[in-house]
Amino acid sequence: MSYNLLKGKRGIIFGALDENSIAWKTAERVHAEGGTFVLTNAPIAMRMGQINALAEKTGSQIIPADATNMEDLQNLVTKAMEILGGKLDFVLHSIGMSVNVRKGIHYTESNYDFTTKGWDVSAVSFHKVCQTLYKNDAMNEWGSIVALTYMAAQRTFPDYNDMADNKAYLESIARSFGYFFGKDRKVRVNTISQSPTPTTAGQGVKGFDGFIAYAEAMSPLGNATAQDCADYTVSLFSDLTKKVTMQNLFHDGGFSNTGVSQEVIEKFNP
Amino acid sequence: MSYNLLKGKRGIIFGALDENSIAWKTAERVHAEGGTFVLTNAPIAMRMGQINALAEKTGSQIIPADATNMEDLQNLVTKAMEILGGKLDFVLHSIGMSVNVRKGIHYTESNYDFTTKGWDVSAVSFHKVCQTLYKNDAMNEWGSIVALTYMAAQRTFPDYNDMADNKAYLESIARSFGYFFGKDRKVRVNTISQSPTPTTAGQGVKGFDGFIAYAEAMSPLGNATAQDCADYTVSLFSDLTKKVTMQNLFHDGGFSNTGVSQEVIEKFNP
Amino acid sequence: MSYNLLKGKRGIIFGALDENSIAWKTAERVHAEGGTFVLTNAPIAMRMGQINALAEKTGSQIIPADATNMEDLQNLVTKAMEILGGKLDFVLHSIGMSVNVRKGIHYTESNYDFTTKGWDVSAVSFHKVCQTLYKNDAMNEWGSIVALTYMAAQRTFPDYNDMADNKAYLESIARSFGYFFGKDRKVRVNTISQSPTPTTAGQGVKGFDGFIAYAEAMSPLGNATAQDCADYTVSLFSDLTKKVTMQNLFHDGGFSNTGVSQEVIEKFNP
Amino acid sequence: MSYNLLKGKRGIIFGALDENSIAWKTAERVHAEGGTFVLTNAPIAMRMGQINALAEKTGSQIIPADATNMEDLQNLVTKAMEILGGKLDFVLHSIGMSVNVRKGIHYTESNYDFTTKGWDVSAVSFHKVCQTLYKNDAMNEWGSIVALTYMAAQRTFPDYNDMADNKAYLESIARSFGYFFGKDRKVRVNTISQSPTPTTAGQGVKGFDGFIAYAEAMSPLGNATAQDCADYTVSLFSDLTKKVTMQNLFHDGGFSNTGVSQEVIEKFNP
Repeated sequence: MSYNLLKGKRGIIFGALDENSIAWKTAERVHAEGGTFVLTNAPIAMRMGQINALAEKTGSQIIPADATNMEDLQNLVTKAMEILGGKLDFVLHSIGMSVNVRKGIHYTESNYDFTTKGWDVSAVSFHKVCQTLYKNDAMNEWGSIVALTYMAAQRTFPDYNDMADNKAYLESIARSFGYFFGKDRKVRVNTISQSPTPTTAGQGVKGFDGFIAYAEAMSPLGNATAQDCADYTVSLFSDLTKKVTMQNLFHDGGFSNTGVSQEVIEKFNP
Repeated sequence: MSYNLLKGKRGIIFGALDENSIAWKTAERVHAEGGTFVLTNAPIAMRMGQINALAEKTGSQIIPADATNMEDLQNLVTKAMEILGGKLDFVLHSIGMSVNVRKGIHYTESNYDFTTKGWDVSAVSFHKVCQTLYKNDAMNEWGSIVALTYMAAQRTFPDYNDMADNKAYLESIARSFGYFFGKDRKVRVNTISQSPTPTTAGQGVKGFDGFIAYAEAMSPLGNATAQDCADYTVSLFSDLTKKVTMQNLFHDGGFSNTGVSQEVIEKFNP
Repeated sequence: MSYNLLKGKRGIIFGALDENSIAWKTAERVHAEGGTFVLTNAPIAMRMGQINALAEKTGSQIIPADATNMEDLQNLVTKAMEILGGKLDFVLHSIGMSVNVRKGIHYTESNYDFTTKGWDVSAVSFHKVCQTLYKNDAMNEWGSIVALTYMAAQRTFPDYNDMADNKAYLESIARSFGYFFGKDRKVRVNTISQSPTPTTAGQGVKGFDGFIAYAEAMSPLGNATAQDCADYTVSLFSDLTKKVTMQNLFHDGGFSNTGVSQEVIEKFNP
Repeated sequence: MSYNLLKGKRGIIFGALDENSIAWKTAERVHAEGGTFVLTNAPIAMRMGQINALAEKTGSQIIPADATNMEDLQNLVTKAMEILGGKLDFVLHSIGMSVNVRKGIHYTESNYDFTTKGWDVSAVSFHKVCQTLYKNDAMNEWGSIVALTYMAAQRTFPDYNDMADNKAYLESIARSFGYFFGKDRKVRVNTISQSPTPTTAGQGVKGFDGFIAYAEAMSPLGNATAQDCADYTVSLFSDLTKKVTMQNLFHDGGFSNTGVSQEVIEKFNP
């Protein structure tokens, strides 16, 4: 489907690794809706991924940037405005990584150097992106900034580890920066709290298959896919949602407000 | 603006009274996006309003219905499918009224006949609409049902009176019915928690002007208008939001997540 | 255990049916803490229960009252103050009943006469109690009013039916009345959102055993029992919690903030 | 008042600086209730404060510890158990500091070294405390761990700066660690979200007087004081609240669920 919802809009998309990525699907949908953008990812992620194919497909340029590095971000924002020919209308932050998770370290045995690294990559990077955009006055009025998050920020999922705390911090940044971006620049900032999604990153989490199955059984409309998320993100980038800001928006087929489903409770019937 | 987002989609819009109504603005936007619909309102509201002008403008038919009356609702749903030529894709419930508020009765002195009447009109009517749609299998898969609500369901606004409790009940219906509509029919049910809006109905509330000014000062993007709400509702009726269900979505320029704004706190500085 | 936490405090306890009742356990605990009170229940519930034994054990009088009947409530409040020798310090509302649930009517097929009856008994009765207390100026400063509720007010549990909507309305009353009781009388009003509890009433709900087992598996500290709830209610009646008001307090062993537990997810592992 | 609620219970209290501190008031109340404890604070804070007077008054020993330093925490927990003669029943974490706030740096111009320092002191320190307690198996069954937080974690208060994000992270730790402490040790972990309190630390925040006045006007029972908070914390340390865990508990005179108060709205009336 295509509606020209983003015709004339310019932006930056962080975090497209491969075709399973939410950011990848979003880039394709934004392109289909007439938006133009710069793709970016960490240099190391770019070597692993196939982002060149996406750039070609969507007529986009790639500017590598470590999202924890303010110089990289300054370069990214400057170049993006040059390449796209003006200020930006949308930004997608889809970045997350926990060293503790990768190393299989239990939450009760955190290594704090790893905790700090994961927090910087997964959460503070969003502040750094916002601060760079704000400082450069790089967003057009009624622009839209979106970061992806997960419900572990509200409720504990035992294997999600310190990513839960990182996501809570990330969502808080969206509110805090959303206040100033709203007041001063008429720009909105929101997070999408997405169903567990079998991206290449997500699949690394221990017990992910059981978890996906559980979430599917608990969600009256089933889990939202990466493609669904791309559609939803387009709506948040569009002019239809200008007054939605500082929100954490659950995009999860109803999981978040389902106390228990029939399928789940049947597993506990005598 | 127009994107053909609702081309081929059919629906029912409750509650368009006059051109200040959110439902009125929504009807215009849905029409612009290619959707077709039946307009409905209570017979008494229709005499007071100018709904005929809206029907003409949007090429719609009007079917009067008391939304608390199951026979009226059955007639409405049956006729709507006949007129529109098939099952429905969207429904907007924009109905609310408190007799206690109208009569100026304080919350601590409620008249329970009035309480019951207001609850039936403002909240149970939404269950009755959903039940009629469900029983008649009147919604297409991936259809979208939206009801309008207000944040008084979460936090107390002293003049909002028993409408707060009615809105809490309404939002609960959206979750409860959303579960079954999701599981059984792949239909989503959500509420939009809108900024205070100077509709003809809203203006009747005591101290409304001060309240609007306060909300404006507390909302980083300013209050969402009826026109903004129409845009947002279109996004929720569209195929971009298929996996959003059982949610209460704040559409309020950031009010709900602003603890205090600079303007408000300055009124309290020594 | 006993700490004299409620020495000299007077109150009313609604809803003690038999020794499984939360209200029964609470009455015993309040008595042990030095509080004095009047017991009340609907005439029909009293015939079924063993409330006389509780009255004897706690040295209390019983005043039958239909909590939906304003005359009964007026009589109850007047008599309670006479019997106890002064204004009240605490009130427990533990009342709930859905005719739709009792009759086995599915949520999507609600009978609205039954819906109205259940709403009046389960939710509006709390407003009626508060209004009677308020009108009679029957609460001492820093008094505490507590109603019992369930998390279905926030998330859907498919068998909980219209009790979910009733509990949402009840919790809203606590906020709305809490505002006025706080401002005008320095009285606090809260709800306790309790684990599913195998009371005589609770056991009537379809699939209750599986549900209790699920909740137990999802709660890091296990389900809160009726006895635990009595302890917690004592803390809310005591002077230790004077500034807690308009809150819905989860008392559930952690269920409400657990997204999934290890035990539950293991049922979904391949 | 004193009820012997904490007789025989042992604990650690972090963060008593001077008699305005919530931790100071809590130490006094815990002592009055029969609890014994070790006091601790950062070496630098101890030089500034009058903690020796508190130690003397409550018969407590002081063990200095930098709560961001795992060796200090290990020493603290080991010594506390030696001094008190057994495992612990309660811990209060009342620690918070933002370098960005202290230096008057606006949220949109954060210095990330300062951000990291404030996050470590205000939020990660709570994880470090929990991890040390957990690793040493230092908590008795049904013990209680409490950290103090502020509602800026949910809603933006413009002058609260990066402390909002730190508090969001802190509250997430309470849930995450609460899950494992609950499951594995039957220990509860909660946060108290306290009214703005004119402690020596709180007073440093820009515009604090206006803010306190605003909060007072918005809270139906008025702001909760440090003394009120001490009372409430005692209830959470006691055996009355054994099944409350992973919760963020608003202790604020009703502020959190008040949308607007009469006093506030009157400032906006024409």
